[in-house]
Amino acid sequence: MKISQRVLNTQFSPIRKLVPYAERAKEEGKKVYLLNIGQPDIETPKAFFEGIKKYSSKVIYYSHSAGLLELRGAFSDYYKLWDIDFDPQELIVTTGGSEAAIFALASVADPGDEVMVIEPFYANYKGFAEMLNVKLCPVKSDPETGYAVPSIEEFEKAYNENVKAIIFSNPSNPTGAVYSYEEVKRIVDFAKEKDIFVISDEVYKEFTFDGTKHVSVMDFEDKDRFILIDSVSKRYSACGARIGVFATKNKKLLEQVMKFAQSRLSPPLLAQFGVLGLLKDLGKDYYQGVALEYQKRRDAAYEEIKKIEGAVCKKPHGSFYLSVKLPIDDSEEFIKWMLTDFDVNGETVMVSPLSGFYATPGAGKQEIRIAYVLNSEELRKACNILKEAVTVYNERKIKVK
Amino acid sequence: MKISQRVLNTQFSPIRKLVPYAERAKEEGKKVYLLNIGQPDIETPKAFFEGIKKYSSKVIYYSHSAGLLELRGAFSDYYKLWDIDFDPQELIVTTGGSEAAIFALASVADPGDEVMVIEPFYANYKGFAEMLNVKLCPVKSDPETGYAVPSIEEFEKAYNENVKAIIFSNPSNPTGAVYSYEEVKRIVDFAKEKDIFVISDEVYKEFTFDGTKHVSVMDFEDKDRFILIDSVSKRYSACGARIGVFATKNKKLLEQVMKFAQSRLSPPLLAQFGVLGLLKDLGKDYYQGVALEYQKRRDAAYEEIKKIEGAVCKKPHGSFYLSVKLPIDDSEEFIKWMLTDFDVNGETVMVSPLSGFYATPGAGKQEIRIAYVLNSEELRKACNILKEAVTVYNERKIKVK
Repeated sequence: MKISQRVLNTQFSPIRKLVPYAERAKEEGKKVYLLNIGQPDIETPKAFFEGIKKYSSKVIYYSHSAGLLELRGAFSDYYKLWDIDFDPQELIVTTGGSEAAIFALASVADPGDEVMVIEPFYANYKGFAEMLNVKLCPVKSDPETGYAVPSIEEFEKAYNENVKAIIFSNPSNPTGAVYSYEEVKRIVDFAKEKDIFVISDEVYKEFTFDGTKHVSVMDFEDKDRFILIDSVSKRYSACGARIGVFATKNKKLLEQVMKFAQSRLSPPLLAQFGVLGLLKDLGKDYYQGVALEYQKRRDAAYEEIKKIEGAVCKKPHGSFYLSVKLPIDDSEEFIKWMLTDFDVNGETVMVSPLSGFYATPGAGKQEIRIAYVLNSEELRKACNILKEAVTVYNERKIKVK
Repeated sequence: MKISQRVLNTQFSPIRKLVPYAERAKEEGKKVYLLNIGQPDIETPKAFFEGIKKYSSKVIYYSHSAGLLELRGAFSDYYKLWDIDFDPQELIVTTGGSEAAIFALASVADPGDEVMVIEPFYANYKGFAEMLNVKLCPVKSDPETGYAVPSIEEFEKAYNENVKAIIFSNPSNPTGAVYSYEEVKRIVDFAKEKDIFVISDEVYKEFTFDGTKHVSVMDFEDKDRFILIDSVSKRYSACGARIGVFATKNKKLLEQVMKFAQSRLSPPLLAQFGVLGLLKDLGKDYYQGVALEYQKRRDAAYEEIKKIEGAVCKKPHGSFYLSVKLPIDDSEEFIKWMLTDFDVNGETVMVSPLSGFYATPGAGKQEIRIAYVLNSEELRKACNILKEAVTVYNERKIKVK
């Protein structure tokens, strides 16, 4: 009786694996600022709850495997706001962006195949790839450049014949980088040259600051090559709804992916009604308001982080994460230590170690991800605690030596 | 740019793939009795909607990746009603039974490994296995025996060294067979002898008729070997909730499967509150009432099916399906024809071809699955139309020749 190698090989989520330490810290009476997970505190708009109230059938039935047609229509209209053209029939409503990523990876790669990824990347791509026996082929971006898209030479160096697609998120989780037109074009051109699929995770598309604008892969030609991954989780502060989208204009691919969708029957029904409410009710002003709030938080977090001596962090312009390289030896050990052995007046901080967001072994050991999902005042406090922790941690290390 | 072989190899759901023909029939003004899909018409109990109303937070947050602890506690209490012992910590709440099956297959088998299955089996096992590059190793049950569990000799014949687990549903979807203590013991003993996992899909455990009683794998010793798959979809007529359970007392396995659960973040939140309402509100009398209703329907469907000359169908004692071997050459062709070229006073029937519920190529071509999810009167009408259809279809065939 043997547990599969694939699950043994799968990494524990770097976002959630240190949760037991945080729980213990709380039990001990510490206040823990949770900056590890992208769970926003902003209220889910009322339209979600109103949408659910409109559900009038007495049976909670399966929806169409691709999601309610009306919901697909509403998503199609919503994308038009951003000049992204998708017919309802080109969309499959998924159980969160997670399932959209699983469908994408499984439909472009077989076991042994590789999918290129700009690292650091959204850590759960790795979990999904491991479940599907797809190997990630990393091309590295650096804190020193603000995690900009690597040069074409670096793509060429990282590439091999087993690569069938490239996946990335823009705005980036975990780095907050917002890719310029030229950067997205570099990815698209490379994919065209190698004749591979492009999987573009555009979950944070509205979260851009300082006048930067999100560039979708759908702005480019050769659209049969593109798969768009979307989710309502962050946009509407509706993580628990578990509603995402797999979108492609590639008819053959879509028809094939429908097999996966049919096998799991349907996405959650009531949440679909909730999201229908959101999509019909909210316009661009809503997204702009949310982006402004996160911009304020980014300002607060970034200002405080910059005060940490030796920290490397270029101002990020999107999503609600920032990654920072700290003057420490091992961020996972550091975070555990903050939870078990450190506090400032009974308060401490939890963030995510960035090593789990890399596919290259040993990479990202000095980096952390901060999700700025608290209000600005709390964020400042939390970042100050972090700053203090870096100092004490390093002094302690010196003493130990 | 190449679509993966795994998705190309995945079968279209035999339950859903003929839906376009049914839609066209409806457009042409025909009434179509839908007996293809296990979507019950029975009302979802009010406790589900009441449970959701109790949700008071203003944010739709991620739940614990294993589901709300309170919900796991309620499931644990519910299993006790059936003398099945699971601690809350031994349960992972999943997005439907579908995800529980995916987690089970992925955690016991690597690409190239095989999972034994009693065929005909729940068709989507095949879809999940294909997505995960796990091969199904079928051992055949027959309509002549009422699809009883095959003999130990047949298990031995089908088995090979690559088999890592056996999966089956009891009561059976698609056959309605309810396995006796001796039959389940045969499976468990075989698994023990070969040292493989047992994945027991007990989604229909309450749906047993004529005094038969469901036998859980959890009634047997050697519990580390067992994975139980569960779902609220059918039990509470809540298919669209997408809430299931992956349960095991094998601590090491559970810890590993949590990696998959964490990668996809959480099951749908509001539905968890709905199911919490159901589990707290409903007792054994509810399940008995539902079973009695389905027993009536089984009676109605079975009586009419028996009138079809040449049909092979032993009275099934559980779930809400029955499989029947018809005196036709190709059930898929027959079903399409019923939708496109046949009606009785403007009415026709849709059922599922059973070939998609077999892993053995060419098997089940004469068989169909009927989901008796309509009231008895409508079921009788539908089965009569089916009877008439068999006659006309065969006469037509003779004429063509």
